Amino acid sequence: MDSFEKLVQMFREFPGIGPRQARRFAFFVVTRNDSFAHDLLKTLNNAKETVGECNDCKRLTDKKGGVALCKICADPTRSKKELLLIAKDTDLVQIEKSGEFKGSYFVLGGLIPLLEREPSRRIRQAHLLSLIEKRKKEGLEEIILALSATNEGENTSEYLREILKDRGLKIFELGRGLSTGSEVEYADAETLKFALKNKK
Amino acid sequence: MDSFEKLVQMFREFPGIGPRQARRFAFFVVTRNDSFAHDLLKTLNNAKETVGECNDCKRLTDKKGGVALCKICADPTRSKKELLLIAKDTDLVQIEKSGEFKGSYFVLGGLIPLLEREPSRRIRQAHLLSLIEKRKKEGLEEIILALSATNEGENTSEYLREILKDRGLKIFELGRGLSTGSEVEYADAETLKFALKNKK
Amino acid sequence: MDSFEKLVQMFREFPGIGPRQARRFAFFVVTRNDSFAHDLLKTLNNAKETVGECNDCKRLTDKKGGVALCKICADPTRSKKELLLIAKDTDLVQIEKSGEFKGSYFVLGGLIPLLEREPSRRIRQAHLLSLIEKRKKEGLEEIILALSATNEGENTSEYLREILKDRGLKIFELGRGLSTGSEVEYADAETLKFALKNKK
Amino acid sequence: MDSFEKLVQMFREFPGIGPRQARRFAFFVVTRNDSFAHDLLKTLNNAKETVGECNDCKRLTDKKGGVALCKICADPTRSKKELLLIAKDTDLVQIEKSGEFKGSYFVLGGLIPLLEREPSRRIRQAHLLSLIEKRKKEGLEEIILALSATNEGENTSEYLREILKDRGLKIFELGRGLSTGSEVEYADAETLKFALKNKK
Repeated sequence: MDSFEKLVQMFREFPGIGPRQARRFAFFVVTRNDSFAHDLLKTLNNAKETVGECNDCKRLTDKKGGVALCKICADPTRSKKELLLIAKDTDLVQIEKSGEFKGSYFVLGGLIPLLEREPSRRIRQAHLLSLIEKRKKEGLEEIILALSATNEGENTSEYLREILKDRGLKIFELGRGLSTGSEVEYADAETLKFALKNKK
Repeated sequence: MDSFEKLVQMFREFPGIGPRQARRFAFFVVTRNDSFAHDLLKTLNNAKETVGECNDCKRLTDKKGGVALCKICADPTRSKKELLLIAKDTDLVQIEKSGEFKGSYFVLGGLIPLLEREPSRRIRQAHLLSLIEKRKKEGLEEIILALSATNEGENTSEYLREILKDRGLKIFELGRGLSTGSEVEYADAETLKFALKNKK
Repeated sequence: MDSFEKLVQMFREFPGIGPRQARRFAFFVVTRNDSFAHDLLKTLNNAKETVGECNDCKRLTDKKGGVALCKICADPTRSKKELLLIAKDTDLVQIEKSGEFKGSYFVLGGLIPLLEREPSRRIRQAHLLSLIEKRKKEGLEEIILALSATNEGENTSEYLREILKDRGLKIFELGRGLSTGSEVEYADAETLKFALKNKK
Repeated sequence: MDSFEKLVQMFREFPGIGPRQARRFAFFVVTRNDSFAHDLLKTLNNAKETVGECNDCKRLTDKKGGVALCKICADPTRSKKELLLIAKDTDLVQIEKSGEFKGSYFVLGGLIPLLEREPSRRIRQAHLLSLIEKRKKEGLEEIILALSATNEGENTSEYLREILKDRGLKIFELGRGLSTGSEVEYADAETLKFALKNKK
């Protein structure tokens, strides 16, 4: 296989990329001028070298110069009373956009499928428990399970409620109900059930 | 225009029907056997004769034999403490499916667009106010505005809160948040804002 | 079941209509004023009384006053040299819109599924053969099989070619190739094969 | 901006990639093990070094070791009598899959928008004309304009017919008609017009 076809194969491994788009990517990078490829390589190397997991929340962050914490964990204006648990790094972006949360985060690293025999291996359980102990000394009062409203998300919330109980913390889940733009006539019965239970 | 084309035109007036489907309907009804057309006409006439607005909630109901109320309004096991307001008859089906609501309904008959100068003409305001007075004598305590999470729905809720205030009633709206199946990563910022505010 | 629910059930039998739209139709017809229902019934009855199969092409047509033929079959300016075979009445509308065909039609009444043991029962075979004999006396020279580019359409074309051969007629099928708006990059291999074979 | 955000920005430049997928790509490449990043960089460099335009058809090809022509242009079993013109490299893949074409290709490098004042700058016109002169000595008889059935594609075909006329070559375009899977009832009028004109 020549190097161009090998490049197509590598792009096929990218998340959500099919054969046609992989080929388009290969054409794209090969036909850019040399500075583009050079930049991409340099940026990727820089990122690989400087990016690492935040010591506290475990999300990827710039650790250049021996920095230990991400900007949010290091920010003294962010409350340490609330800890919000998310499944993966990319979930954080949307929650920050909402502007509604002023506490700190922890990235679980995954969700727990139904019937999983060893749920603790699917999430960063040991890191989570030790962060909670640390944060309790800083005033931690509540944990928000910000997981998707799917079977896996609900299963994970249930497991987390179990391992986090009896620690003197309030445990919350995201409110369920009508999402923005939903019409009553087309809402599913479970969503309406939550919308009625959670009426405001 | 011949009678077949006239039939196509009449089906075009049905909600959500384009020219192609209207033509398919016309072929469908014309090629059924005679008993189908006869049945349709008889059923439609029966429905027109027997169906009318429920005296209380204003939804369409079978009023054969001088019945004044729909099954829900006439049901003594449905609580009169909660009154749930919906925009249109078809919204009721989904809410009943949720099994979460045991009170009674009122059909507003529409939503109020932004900037409407005469909002009272868009909804059955006089009927609503007189039903509320009647229900207060039966123990009415709370009103649930079960309107779509859209601009029109929110505008209508705001107007209703205004005209229903100072009547000694609690006013609720449907809970907002993640709808069933939603993933955090793809939720819009406003929905996450509500989901965080309404955490449980 | 009350008459309204019976009406919903009848609309569910309409082609392509689900439970929600059936209910919306029932609300629609019941809440129109009386003249709408009256008009619909009258138009449907008129259509049922006056519409029948054209003696020649078998499509539904206005047969009021003992008319035997549809407008196209009765039109002396339409060529009798070409006979275009379609699967169903509604296919005719799109072909007439193209403005490209000036001959006459025959409605087969269906397509023949793969592996059908008695293909002659799926189409109006006897009517087709007798129309062809009649048209040959009027100068019929070619037959165009205007069937969908699907497995059933191709199977039907193959069967028709077999039963129509050795009658001194040219048999054509619709040209295959790129449809309007198609891009080469996204076209399937079979379509490109036809597009290359049928290059102009 | 830190190097991770810069990486996200670079992926945003990839064709068809939005902000969310760009971020997912950045997470993906940064969290792979080191050999993945190393491989990607090496493969990209190799491809950049070895890939270049085929001297004849101008598509990207492996030019390692001073090779001048792509595999198709260098293949003595591919006919030199037919030259097929495509807009871009990726169009070739689908045409080869059809197995219908055994001649050689030329990549125009673009399509000509309507009202373009300098159409010759949008395509590799000089290269095309000199390749045609070369191929005529090798027996070139026909040119196939394999362009999309869009406004731009048709405009480009029209321009090419103009500049290629009077050269003793037959000029073809891809056949137009029903694409595989199309149903007559849903075909647009123009496609049916072509399907009838190009009946077989």
